[in-house]
Amino acid sequence: MNLSERTELHRIPDRGSHDRKTIDSILDAGFLAHVGFCLDGQPFVIPRCMAGMEKDSTCMVQPPVGCCENLRLAWQSCVTVTLVDGLVLSRSAFDHSMNYGCVVAFGTSRKIADLEQKVKSLRVVFARYLRTSSPPDGADVRGPSEKELKTTTVFEFSIEESSSKIRTGPPLDDESDDGLPAWAALLPLEIKSRPPTPDDTLVEGITVPDYVWRNDARLAGHTEIRNFPIPSGRA
Amino acid sequence: MNLSERTELHRIPDRGSHDRKTIDSILDAGFLAHVGFCLDGQPFVIPRCMAGMEKDSTCMVQPPVGCCENLRLAWQSCVTVTLVDGLVLSRSAFDHSMNYGCVVAFGTSRKIADLEQKVKSLRVVFARYLRTSSPPDGADVRGPSEKELKTTTVFEFSIEESSSKIRTGPPLDDESDDGLPAWAALLPLEIKSRPPTPDDTLVEGITVPDYVWRNDARLAGHTEIRNFPIPSGRA
Repeated sequence: MNLSERTELHRIPDRGSHDRKTIDSILDAGFLAHVGFCLDGQPFVIPRCMAGMEKDSTCMVQPPVGCCENLRLAWQSCVTVTLVDGLVLSRSAFDHSMNYGCVVAFGTSRKIADLEQKVKSLRVVFARYLRTSSPPDGADVRGPSEKELKTTTVFEFSIEESSSKIRTGPPLDDESDDGLPAWAALLPLEIKSRPPTPDDTLVEGITVPDYVWRNDARLAGHTEIRNFPIPSGRA
Repeated sequence: MNLSERTELHRIPDRGSHDRKTIDSILDAGFLAHVGFCLDGQPFVIPRCMAGMEKDSTCMVQPPVGCCENLRLAWQSCVTVTLVDGLVLSRSAFDHSMNYGCVVAFGTSRKIADLEQKVKSLRVVFARYLRTSSPPDGADVRGPSEKELKTTTVFEFSIEESSSKIRTGPPLDDESDDGLPAWAALLPLEIKSRPPTPDDTLVEGITVPDYVWRNDARLAGHTEIRNFPIPSGRA
């Protein structure tokens, strides 16, 4: 396999050939999605909190509030989740790259009208966002009032087709650049959380909930969590 | 100003009312853009390395290679750059939020055909990407060959309209939630680079270029670099 073939495979993946497990692992490790939709031929890309996936291939994200008003009941969307693992600095500028995992999912978004379904969806959203196996309740967080529910727009994104793209490992310079007196390296990046800053008006005796520490563990290293195979490089 | 008005201002900014300096500071601190475009009503969102801005309001990013083939010479795009600074955990799930800076820019993308302009554009891209005041050359990196240039698609994104959205500061629970026995805090996030992993076949005597350390300094704290005003909260 030569370099251009390798690049080809990374840049134009055979959609649908990537396994569900890899796609889910990226969606599960991410917490931010970029949601795209078209209005009269004009593309919009809005960042939204990732709400994770249910097993029936439904992805829940918070809504692009302002724009939603102009959208119909159902609309074509593209939801993209990108995790950056590092900058790849090569001997040649042509071979500079980035280590990342990315999912591009195509499907249909629908507003959720039913209040009961809305509550259920929001509980899934927050459970995923906060990384709890069960939605937070009671001491952790106050649930929504009916008024709040009515002023919250929630939408459901049904994935029809999705693909993932992944780059891992060291720089991959062309063989003809062997011996070039230039530096080449992988510059690993990671998202870390600093210690939480508790609100200064907390009720006495309230302590940091467990899910916060689990959240931190999740954010400490994408690659370890995703456990992607590392390509062996040219060596 | 009550909470819903505050939220309103954050969620539906008056486009064009945000000053250029704020927009530039977000674009300048980011290194990843999500590029959106429409093909026959189908939205696409593709992550691309951010290449920063020139003073004439032109933003250069690497191309969505596969899809480009189906696009005409010029096409409407939406380029979104999002920097996440922290998770905002409130007493009520309704008031959970995220601290972030985001630019949504609308404009026209055009393929660059002229080879000389392509080289110039790529030099800007790499200078910004590597955070050098001048494009790397010689010992830092090998420039592109004519063959590489011809197989590289570069496009130019001209911003016609852009807006920024920013959230900073602590949780902002509704006053009616004062005294609720629930935890609330800001969980600050940051992107850090770990030490570089030099390629194991480097020519002897090649050391880490200075720009790598400058790059690390850039990544250590978005908020400090952007220097956004911190809202005082309700207190």
